[in-house]
Amino acid sequence: MKRVTIDDIAQAAGVSKGAVSYALNGRPGVSEPTRRRILEIAERLGWAPSSAARALSDGRAGALGLVLNRPPRVLGVEPYFMQLIAGIESVLATEGSESGALLLKVVDGVEAELACYRRWWAERRVDGVILMNLRMDDPRIDLVGELGLPAVLLGGPERTGGLPCVWSDDGAAIEEVVEYLFSLGHRRIARVAGPEEFVHTGTRTAAFERTARRLGLRDTRTVHTDYSDEAGARAARRLLASGAPPTALVFDNDLMAAAALGVAAELGRAVPAQVSLVAWDDSALCRLVRPPLTAVRRPIAEHGAAAVRLLLDLLAGGEPRDVETAAPILVPRGTTGRCGAVG
Amino acid sequence: MKRVTIDDIAQAAGVSKGAVSYALNGRPGVSEPTRRRILEIAERLGWAPSSAARALSDGRAGALGLVLNRPPRVLGVEPYFMQLIAGIESVLATEGSESGALLLKVVDGVEAELACYRRWWAERRVDGVILMNLRMDDPRIDLVGELGLPAVLLGGPERTGGLPCVWSDDGAAIEEVVEYLFSLGHRRIARVAGPEEFVHTGTRTAAFERTARRLGLRDTRTVHTDYSDEAGARAARRLLASGAPPTALVFDNDLMAAAALGVAAELGRAVPAQVSLVAWDDSALCRLVRPPLTAVRRPIAEHGAAAVRLLLDLLAGGEPRDVETAAPILVPRGTTGRCGAVG
Repeated sequence: MKRVTIDDIAQAAGVSKGAVSYALNGRPGVSEPTRRRILEIAERLGWAPSSAARALSDGRAGALGLVLNRPPRVLGVEPYFMQLIAGIESVLATEGSESGALLLKVVDGVEAELACYRRWWAERRVDGVILMNLRMDDPRIDLVGELGLPAVLLGGPERTGGLPCVWSDDGAAIEEVVEYLFSLGHRRIARVAGPEEFVHTGTRTAAFERTARRLGLRDTRTVHTDYSDEAGARAARRLLASGAPPTALVFDNDLMAAAALGVAAELGRAVPAQVSLVAWDDSALCRLVRPPLTAVRRPIAEHGAAAVRLLLDLLAGGEPRDVETAAPILVPRGTTGRCGAVG
Repeated sequence: MKRVTIDDIAQAAGVSKGAVSYALNGRPGVSEPTRRRILEIAERLGWAPSSAARALSDGRAGALGLVLNRPPRVLGVEPYFMQLIAGIESVLATEGSESGALLLKVVDGVEAELACYRRWWAERRVDGVILMNLRMDDPRIDLVGELGLPAVLLGGPERTGGLPCVWSDDGAAIEEVVEYLFSLGHRRIARVAGPEEFVHTGTRTAAFERTARRLGLRDTRTVHTDYSDEAGARAARRLLASGAPPTALVFDNDLMAAAALGVAAELGRAVPAQVSLVAWDDSALCRLVRPPLTAVRRPIAEHGAAAVRLLLDLLAGGEPRDVETAAPILVPRGTTGRCGAVG
């Protein structure tokens, strides 16, 4: 069965394509009885206006866009992305078909990401985009401004260049983690962080250093990685093998913390008796490893859902605004304990 | 900056919209000097044909569709989906922008999935779709046939209704797993499987039972779950607490096997000394838990990539065909050992 076209309707009704077009678009040019007859035939044949035709008339593409600038391999491993997409889809599924789908693209590098937005907007493939991983001096902010492409940011609320954003208070969560470890007697704490160019990495680092200073901790440090389990394992191995090793490690995701559990086992360091580990992002992984990982739980799916709602609201003419979601919370489990409980 | 329209070009050139349309589409109706002037103005203003306009002219939507009929929560937890998407995107990223994006939709139930294909095709949002999780008497096969919607299946090669498919030999992999466990002395083996209505579940069950019969195993059974970690844990708990518990459990994904590791610890059963566990799908999770999980490694990303290539080939006029990818392989790790090695 081929798709029904205006030609098919014209043929079945014995009228011109122009007459069909007038009838379907409710424009003058055909008599009322002819219009009714054409509409009946169109319905009987199962005609539906194509998204292409609708986009030309009402200017809507009917899709939101998300570009993931990460190696495909990492995407397949880190639970964050699918949780985010699940949150996005949970709103799109309920808000009707007008904005009902997510156009997804994986790219390699910032330039490719920028090119993707340019093309999507020029070709009217999306009505708006969700920007992930806000960077320092993020070139995407200028680009969407120039293009006039509706966009919301995951991250902020600083350095957003005035773009509406969805954020949660990462700084407060880091503060809570450091205070918690301090209360357990830890004085040498290291942070295994994500890429330095991300704004949320900087936010966490600043809060980490601020809290350490306030508590009088002098032996703290932050090392940067690409979030991969390999990089997390490497960083943990280097830190734990150093002269005065940290007694607690705080990770910027779940994958690296889980990998560090393996490194601790390999080096013969008992967790948590000899070293405590804290994960960021409380995925199934954190509950499934042994001991289960103490983790900072962020509402990732809620971030995705809030971003879609904010973007749809903008598209409907709403005012730009920032949305703060529930604060991340610390979930203590089996990988944190008193410093030097054994050995 | 708003998007440049034909109106803007007409105004800047001091000609009618019709003249601009003739010029841009290379049709007669304007003089050659006027055409050149219009094209220059269009280029200066940064005009690009919208995907909507292109779709009306060349009939291509420029996107492939994937519907995930699973609860959003499960999507966020199981590594399979993001690995598949990563594989799909790896091809789309390299094949140029014409087919360059993935339209993704999460639905709840088969009816919603069918409705989504109908709408996408009627509205010309996609050029073709990838169908996941082939079911017994799958209604999607008839639907895409009726619609004339180009489609490829992940699964098969049986019960595909003639649709081109991408498959790997799951039966041979199950056979290898059972023979391996048999060689370790296991005689009571249970399988914790996915939903019974999926064709690949049936394929694995049939191969499991056939191999058990051939080896003279009489105490084997298969229980069905929804693939969630909770369901996997429940099934493992029930099986291990039964009168003559199995000495080896084979799971249909990685998440359930990891959850069963926790159940074994909770019940005080040493892994692998008292019970062996085998996971399906060798994700990072399998390597990160302790002991690391023995697993069947399937080329999931390769499946996604092969499905896109097959679909693009069909769209370009290629012949429908089935693609068999590399066979799944057994990766022995720390959760399998000799039956009754201890106590």
